[in-house]
Amino acid sequence: MKLSFNTWVYSGFPVWVPSYPLEDVIKRLARIGYDAIEIGAAAPHAFPDYLSPQRRQEIRHVLDGEGIAVSSMLPAPGGGAGYNVASPDAPERSAAIEMYKKVTDLCSEWGAPTLLYVAGWQVFGTGRPQALDWTTAALAEIADYAAAAGISVAVEPTSADSNLIDSCDDVIALMDAVNRPNVGAMFDTYHTLYRNEVPSDYVYRLGKRLRHIHLADANREPPGSGVVDYVSLIQSLRDVGYEGYLTMEIGFNRRNVEPDDMARRAYAYLRSIL
Amino acid sequence: MKLSFNTWVYSGFPVWVPSYPLEDVIKRLARIGYDAIEIGAAAPHAFPDYLSPQRRQEIRHVLDGEGIAVSSMLPAPGGGAGYNVASPDAPERSAAIEMYKKVTDLCSEWGAPTLLYVAGWQVFGTGRPQALDWTTAALAEIADYAAAAGISVAVEPTSADSNLIDSCDDVIALMDAVNRPNVGAMFDTYHTLYRNEVPSDYVYRLGKRLRHIHLADANREPPGSGVVDYVSLIQSLRDVGYEGYLTMEIGFNRRNVEPDDMARRAYAYLRSIL
Amino acid sequence: MKLSFNTWVYSGFPVWVPSYPLEDVIKRLARIGYDAIEIGAAAPHAFPDYLSPQRRQEIRHVLDGEGIAVSSMLPAPGGGAGYNVASPDAPERSAAIEMYKKVTDLCSEWGAPTLLYVAGWQVFGTGRPQALDWTTAALAEIADYAAAAGISVAVEPTSADSNLIDSCDDVIALMDAVNRPNVGAMFDTYHTLYRNEVPSDYVYRLGKRLRHIHLADANREPPGSGVVDYVSLIQSLRDVGYEGYLTMEIGFNRRNVEPDDMARRAYAYLRSIL
Amino acid sequence: MKLSFNTWVYSGFPVWVPSYPLEDVIKRLARIGYDAIEIGAAAPHAFPDYLSPQRRQEIRHVLDGEGIAVSSMLPAPGGGAGYNVASPDAPERSAAIEMYKKVTDLCSEWGAPTLLYVAGWQVFGTGRPQALDWTTAALAEIADYAAAAGISVAVEPTSADSNLIDSCDDVIALMDAVNRPNVGAMFDTYHTLYRNEVPSDYVYRLGKRLRHIHLADANREPPGSGVVDYVSLIQSLRDVGYEGYLTMEIGFNRRNVEPDDMARRAYAYLRSIL
Repeated sequence: MKLSFNTWVYSGFPVWVPSYPLEDVIKRLARIGYDAIEIGAAAPHAFPDYLSPQRRQEIRHVLDGEGIAVSSMLPAPGGGAGYNVASPDAPERSAAIEMYKKVTDLCSEWGAPTLLYVAGWQVFGTGRPQALDWTTAALAEIADYAAAAGISVAVEPTSADSNLIDSCDDVIALMDAVNRPNVGAMFDTYHTLYRNEVPSDYVYRLGKRLRHIHLADANREPPGSGVVDYVSLIQSLRDVGYEGYLTMEIGFNRRNVEPDDMARRAYAYLRSIL
Repeated sequence: MKLSFNTWVYSGFPVWVPSYPLEDVIKRLARIGYDAIEIGAAAPHAFPDYLSPQRRQEIRHVLDGEGIAVSSMLPAPGGGAGYNVASPDAPERSAAIEMYKKVTDLCSEWGAPTLLYVAGWQVFGTGRPQALDWTTAALAEIADYAAAAGISVAVEPTSADSNLIDSCDDVIALMDAVNRPNVGAMFDTYHTLYRNEVPSDYVYRLGKRLRHIHLADANREPPGSGVVDYVSLIQSLRDVGYEGYLTMEIGFNRRNVEPDDMARRAYAYLRSIL
Repeated sequence: MKLSFNTWVYSGFPVWVPSYPLEDVIKRLARIGYDAIEIGAAAPHAFPDYLSPQRRQEIRHVLDGEGIAVSSMLPAPGGGAGYNVASPDAPERSAAIEMYKKVTDLCSEWGAPTLLYVAGWQVFGTGRPQALDWTTAALAEIADYAAAAGISVAVEPTSADSNLIDSCDDVIALMDAVNRPNVGAMFDTYHTLYRNEVPSDYVYRLGKRLRHIHLADANREPPGSGVVDYVSLIQSLRDVGYEGYLTMEIGFNRRNVEPDDMARRAYAYLRSIL
Repeated sequence: MKLSFNTWVYSGFPVWVPSYPLEDVIKRLARIGYDAIEIGAAAPHAFPDYLSPQRRQEIRHVLDGEGIAVSSMLPAPGGGAGYNVASPDAPERSAAIEMYKKVTDLCSEWGAPTLLYVAGWQVFGTGRPQALDWTTAALAEIADYAAAAGISVAVEPTSADSNLIDSCDDVIALMDAVNRPNVGAMFDTYHTLYRNEVPSDYVYRLGKRLRHIHLADANREPPGSGVVDYVSLIQSLRDVGYEGYLTMEIGFNRRNVEPDDMARRAYAYLRSIL
C-alpha cells in the first residue's frame, strides 16, 4: 500500500504559520520516503487563480525530479469564499463548483487521479432536503467535468466539521443519488472518531466504491500516537483489495507543530505495521 | 464606550458550522443590545464577490431598520486564497490588496468608519525585511484607497496566528513606515495574552493612535470568563480619552459554541464594569 | 557532534537550591560522558568578581584533569543587577557591558571559544528602535573586546523570557546591524517552542552563521522527554555542516530536580539518536 | 492595618518582563490605594550601585508627591551575584553583607523602617552548623549597621526556596543567637503553605517579635484567590496587637501576569475582610 501526505500542515490554511513553499514540501516529503503527495489548493501552494502556466510546469518538474506522485487534490473550504456547495447563497454555490473544476484542471496537469469532494454544510434556515439537492447537483456537474479528464471524485463525510454528509450511509446515499461511475467514496479516521464509528466498518461496507482514505488520530495527531486501531484498518483494506493511497492529513489544526516531524512519525509508524 | 460584536462565530469562517444568514445576525445582536456590528468579509455573510448591488442595499436596510451601526470590517485571511500581503507569491499579494479594496467599498456602502488590517505572515524562506517591505507597500496602497472614501485603517498585531507584526512596537514601526494620517493601530486582548503582554501598556503607548480594540479572553472566551484584566483596560482607555468601539471577537475558533450565548455573556459583563 | 551541559541547574541561579561547588559539577559531567561544560557566570560557580587569580587557576586544573572542555560561557541576567543591555537606566547598561567583558576574560582563561549574548528586554516606556540601538551598541563593544581575545559571540533569541530579540529574523537583523565577523547566532529549542517555531527552520536559515545551540524540551525537560523533534534538528544540522556543540540547558527553572539525573537522561537520549 | 505592595512583579527580577520604571510603579500603587510600597533592590528600580544621589532624591520626591510610604526594602537573592550569606565562597558572603548595608542606606534615604533579611542557603558540602554560623555572623553585622540608622531587621523563613531558615522555630533560634533588639521576625504565607504550616501559629508564637508579613496565596496568586485562610490570620494579628504592614508579594514568579491586576485584586480582597 502506498503512502501519501497532505500539504495543509505546510501551508497557510487554515493556520497561517508555519508555512513553506511547495517546492520545499515536495522535496522534504520525497526525502522522508513518501510515494505521493496530496496537494491542497491553498496559498502559498496551489490556489488555482495564482498559478500561471509556467508555475504549473515548474511544479511538475519538481515532482518529476523527486520521483513523487500526486495522489489527490482538494479545495480549501471555509475561508472568506466559503466554497460551500450547499450554501443558500447562489453566487457561493457557483463559485464552489467553479473552484472544483479549477482543481480538476490542476489534477490533470500534475497527474493526480483523484479529486476529493466535501459535500458542504447547512446554514441556519436551509432544510436538509434542499441542502442535499444542492450538493447532489454540484457533485453531478463536477463529476462530469472530471470524467472528461479521466479523473475520479471521492466524496468525504466530514462529521467533525459539518452537518450534511456525516456518515457512511450519508455518503452511500449521495453516491446513489448522483450515480456516476467516476464517483466513489473516501473517509477520514479523524472524522469517524468524532462520531465514534469503526473505520473498518466503512471499508467492508464500501468495498470497491472506496477510492481514498485520510489517516489521522485524535486531535489530528499522526497515526500511532493516539487511539485509532490502524492494524484492524489495514487488515480490512487487504480483505477488500484496496488499491488506493493511505494519505496522512495531520497536524494542520494548530500552530505548534513541526511539519517534518509529523510526516516522519506517521511514515515510520505506517511502515512498521504494513 | 460603545459595544460592537464581530460576526465570525456566526459565519462559515474559519469553522463551518454553526452558520447563520447575515440578516439573522444583525437582528440578534441588535436585540441583545449591541451598538454596532463588525462584519467579517466571509461567506455566507459578506464575501465581496458574492454581493450584488441589490444585496448590498438589502443589508443596508436591515441595518438601518434595526438601528445598529457597522463599527468596522475586515477580510478573512488564511483560506484557500490566503490573502497574505507578505506572501512570496506576487499574485497572492495582489489579490490580497484587491480584497482589502473591495472590503473598503463595503465599508462605504454600509457606513463603517474603520477597516482592519492584518499585516500578513512570513513563509519559510522570506526574510523579515522583505516581508516588512511588502506589507508596508500594501498598507500604503490600501490606506490611500481608503482615505479617498474617508475610511480609517487600523493595523492589528496578530501574534497568536502570525510571525510578522506581533507586538506594540511592531505596529508602531509599521505605522511610522507607512506614515498616513488615516492609518492607526488596534489590538486584540487574545493576541496580547498569547505574548503575555499587558493590554493597558498598549493603550498608554498608543494613545490617540489607537483606533479599535478586540476583546476576547483565553481560548476566545467572552470577556469576564477568563484571565484578562478588563478593569485596568477600561481605566487606561478612559485615561487616554479613547472614543472607539469595544468589539468582541470571540467563540469562532471552535464548533461547540452557541453564538447568541457568547454575545449575551460578553455584553452583560462589559455593561457591568463600564 | 559534541555534547555539552549548562551549569545553571547545579547553581544558585535562578533557583537557590540544589546548589553544588563548581569542582563537583565538572567532575560529575565528565563522568557522565559530556565532552564539554557551559559555565554560567553565577554564584557559587563563576561570578567574576568573586574569582581570585588562584581560584581561576584551580578551576582550570580541575578542567584539565578531567579532560573536559568549556564549550561556552554566559552571564546570569535578571538578578538584582539586571544586566539588561537595553535598559533605560544608563548605569545598568554600562554594568551589563562590563559583565560581558569580565565573562570574556573567563572564557580566555578557561579556554571557552564562545560567549553567549542575551540582547536584553524592553522596559515599559522604551520603544523598540531605542532598545535596538542600545543592544546593537552593546554588542558591538562586547564583540570587539571578544575579538581581541579570539572569542566568538553567539546571539540568542530568548522569546520565552524577553520581548526584544525573539525570532530568527530578529537575530539576523541584529547580526547584520552589528556586522562583526566574530558575531554569530544561536538558538534554544525551549525558546523556539514558546513561539511555536520549527528548530530546523533556524538551522537552514542561519547556515554557517549558526555557532551554538541550546537543547531543552517543554518546561526545560531533557531532550527526548517532551515534544521537540530532535531527529529533524540533527538532520538539518548535518545538512548545513554544523560543527559546534549541542548544549543542554535544562532543569534550572524549578527546585524539584536532581541535576545528575537531568544530565544523564539528556546524554543517553542524544547519544541514541546521533 | 496598613497595606503595602512589593515591587518584584513590576521589575526585571526574577522574570524579565513585564517591567516598569519605578516612578510608574509608585504612581500606580498610590492610585490603587496602597498606603505603602515595598521596594526590592533590583533593576530597573533600585539596584544600589546604579542609583546616583540625584536619582535617589528624584524617587524621594515622587514618593512624597504621591503620599505613599516605603514600608520596607530587601535585596534580590539568587542572580549572578547570589548574595547567599551562608555561601562557602567567602567573597560571596562579603558581597552579600555589603549589599544589605547598601539597601539599609536606601531605607534611610527613602524612609523605610524595616530591612528584610533572607538567611541564605546551604550549598552541597556545607554542613548546617557552619551555615548557621555564617548567617548569624552576617545578621549581627547587618543589624548593627541598621541600628545605627534606626532601622529594624526582619528575618524571613523561606522554606519554598531555601534549606536553612525554614520554620518558625528556625527563625526564633536565629533571633536568639544574634540577640539584637532591632532584629525581629517576619513570615510569608506562600512559604508557610509550602511546609503546610498555619500562618496564625506564627503570629501567636512570635507575638511582639513579629515585625512584618508577606501575603501571597498558592502560586503567588493574590490573597483571596487561593487556599490560605486570611480571615483567621487577620484575627490573630488583632489578637497580638500587630502594628506593621500587610505586604503583598505576588505574581512575580511568572511572565504572564498583569501587575496592576494583581495589585488591584489583592487590595480589593484585603479591604473587604479588614
